[in-house]
Amino acid sequence: MKEKTMLTDLYQLTMNAAYFDNQKDDMATFDLFIRKLPQDWGFFIANGIEDAIDYVTNLQFTVEDIQYLKDQQIFNEDFLETLPEFRFNGEVYAVKEGTPIMPNTPVMRVTAKRTEAQFVETALLNMINFQTMIATKANRVVNAAKRGNKDAVVVDFGLRRAQEEDAAMKGSRATYVGGAVATSNVKAGKEYGIPISGTHAHSFVMSFKTEIEAFRAYAKTFPNKPTLLIDTYDTEQGARNASIVGKELEAQGKQLGAVRLDSGDLADLSQKVRKILDEQGLDYVKVLASNDLNEYKIDEMNEKGAVITGYGVGTEMITAKPVAAISGVYKLVEDNQGGKIKLAPGKKTYPGKKQIYRQEVNGEYKVDILALEDEKVMGKPLLEQVVKDGERVRERPKLAETREYCLNEVAKMPEALKQTRVIEQYQVQISYGLNNLVNQLTDQFAQQ
Amino acid sequence: MKEKTMLTDLYQLTMNAAYFDNQKDDMATFDLFIRKLPQDWGFFIANGIEDAIDYVTNLQFTVEDIQYLKDQQIFNEDFLETLPEFRFNGEVYAVKEGTPIMPNTPVMRVTAKRTEAQFVETALLNMINFQTMIATKANRVVNAAKRGNKDAVVVDFGLRRAQEEDAAMKGSRATYVGGAVATSNVKAGKEYGIPISGTHAHSFVMSFKTEIEAFRAYAKTFPNKPTLLIDTYDTEQGARNASIVGKELEAQGKQLGAVRLDSGDLADLSQKVRKILDEQGLDYVKVLASNDLNEYKIDEMNEKGAVITGYGVGTEMITAKPVAAISGVYKLVEDNQGGKIKLAPGKKTYPGKKQIYRQEVNGEYKVDILALEDEKVMGKPLLEQVVKDGERVRERPKLAETREYCLNEVAKMPEALKQTRVIEQYQVQISYGLNNLVNQLTDQFAQQ
Repeated sequence: MKEKTMLTDLYQLTMNAAYFDNQKDDMATFDLFIRKLPQDWGFFIANGIEDAIDYVTNLQFTVEDIQYLKDQQIFNEDFLETLPEFRFNGEVYAVKEGTPIMPNTPVMRVTAKRTEAQFVETALLNMINFQTMIATKANRVVNAAKRGNKDAVVVDFGLRRAQEEDAAMKGSRATYVGGAVATSNVKAGKEYGIPISGTHAHSFVMSFKTEIEAFRAYAKTFPNKPTLLIDTYDTEQGARNASIVGKELEAQGKQLGAVRLDSGDLADLSQKVRKILDEQGLDYVKVLASNDLNEYKIDEMNEKGAVITGYGVGTEMITAKPVAAISGVYKLVEDNQGGKIKLAPGKKTYPGKKQIYRQEVNGEYKVDILALEDEKVMGKPLLEQVVKDGERVRERPKLAETREYCLNEVAKMPEALKQTRVIEQYQVQISYGLNNLVNQLTDQFAQQ
Repeated sequence: MKEKTMLTDLYQLTMNAAYFDNQKDDMATFDLFIRKLPQDWGFFIANGIEDAIDYVTNLQFTVEDIQYLKDQQIFNEDFLETLPEFRFNGEVYAVKEGTPIMPNTPVMRVTAKRTEAQFVETALLNMINFQTMIATKANRVVNAAKRGNKDAVVVDFGLRRAQEEDAAMKGSRATYVGGAVATSNVKAGKEYGIPISGTHAHSFVMSFKTEIEAFRAYAKTFPNKPTLLIDTYDTEQGARNASIVGKELEAQGKQLGAVRLDSGDLADLSQKVRKILDEQGLDYVKVLASNDLNEYKIDEMNEKGAVITGYGVGTEMITAKPVAAISGVYKLVEDNQGGKIKLAPGKKTYPGKKQIYRQEVNGEYKVDILALEDEKVMGKPLLEQVVKDGERVRERPKLAETREYCLNEVAKMPEALKQTRVIEQYQVQISYGLNNLVNQLTDQFAQQ
């Protein structure tokens, strides 16, 4: 794991210095939740939780870090002397990675001494905001692909347009959790065990005198189900050239695997290419497509009758363009004075230590109930303890298990919430006890 | 530096295996350029170049990497045996980091054996696409702030919404190059020497019984020009509370530094808050603003007469939302058969080894001329050799120098291109020699 202790906003340290100086280090609870669904989205897929657990359980300033902070001449000596021993000793509850979650319900709940609970805010948001956004975006793309053809698959092609290396790495992992089957990113394949996928570029075709020469060269090196990119010059001619190479492979007892389209009217071309291949008896050769795809374009292609069984999706899946960032926040909900509430319009916070209960009817999730932790409510509790006394209390699950869990949970979500343009809302109810606490704190606030 | 050799698309390796297998490893030249300016943008600020140089000069597969590739059962033994010795031995020309550049002109030019030049594509694009996008976005935000007040400054607040850690780190660096004066990101401060900035959050105010108690606690710990966040309950009341603390600081021979607004109508509130402060003789106290800002909102605030001298800009600057990704590509332009051209509409590539010449008139840049390397053209050449025989031939400049260079170069760009909504285009001319080569290759292509 990378050393992330210094990956924080300066204000976490200045606040902590002031808490220390003012002897205000009582226990506090913060909720991490996402305020709002982006337009058209039906839910989020919680992700980044496991990295978040590693982060809080490994906090520690190095001598060099403390020297740097000292050199800034911002902090007094007494505070700086506390830093070598600074650790996170509190508890964390979180939903399982891969769980569909609703806005304004906690993805994570942190209880610790105020300085410890406050300090972790920035890095937790950095990890969970991004990884949750990408797992969700990928799930949307996969759902669109499968509406066209239940066997259609999505591969992450995003590395070159990802927002630097970590975004590519954690992003590939998130797209896999959300339902992608593979990635072009070799390092993500190696580090996370995600299947890797890839063929050749236009420059490969341009490196040979003719397209068919390039195809033959590629098939010579990769005779077992190679994929050929057929749009460098003319897609239909490319399909005919690929067919010739496909028949040559058959003569060697091998098979062409697939052809890929990367420009033009993909729906229309997919039908023409399918026909060219089928006429040569190459009905087993798959037609893949790429070129700045997203869930909206895939829906359109499905409507136009595209015959495509694999999508390479790059830029928009790995950056969640145009969303680019989701509104995850980290808010104080309880301290030794009791529940804390914020009443500003659009910035409401639910007070107290809470649990989410998810209710299922006939195999479909119907409603989440946000309740106080000690209330008795029907349904499956989503928040589980993951850190106790500063130590991880649950092993990191295998990535393939997380992916399977995610896809099984998504299968139980209402179909209306899995569309590309979602207009319905999943029901989130506020429990009797939580509602009472909200009213009581609102009244107190009004009387001040 | 992180080990980035495996940070590549699988197809770079499959292509290289096919080039190796087909004895096609002649010298080739690729251009890295950006196809298109996002809507409203006038130019790009080239960034990520120094990381790119480190990357190509440190390529090396580990034993573990090669074992992983072997385990995938994609590659034959002969190719795998070449990997331990695989290095980049070629040459790289690039524009200086911080240079304003135009679409469709090379940011970088790579010449090497085909396998080496091809292999580096993905990681180069990953670094340069992101860092260029963020330096440019930051420059746009800074230009907007300075149009309102030439002394206004912009601080990077993006860490919590950045697309994971590298995006936050390289992003902070890029915002600094583009003109931000500081970052909230402590790790970026430590690693890159960027000034760090930060105060306290709403949760700090909520942790005390009253706002003024919180302000006093903060000012007690940080009596030297503290910044107070004044909108937790009511901004104008917050300004009055801050004024009281400001006068208390004066009584100790100290000064309040600034107040920060983080919600509501920032332009209107800034005027009201300014008045409250001025009435108490606190005219030296600065008014800062944050809350999902971008260059468009800052322009609007300026038009409404905002009295703000510092902006904390987070989400939209660190992700370049809604742009989220720019269209940097890496294209074959020459090999041992001569210049290479692509003619697909919207995907044109200029052939040959090229140089960009920038012409200045009365201290303002007027035109760039894209020419063949050996042509004699007036103007300052922008591409410089940075790698020769696989080795870096120019030291990494200090970050502060890069920032200064960038801001000086931007100062020479036409004002019309520095607006928030740019409608004019900077002139890029194609030289006589390059135009001839384009025509010649187009004719050849048509005759095929």
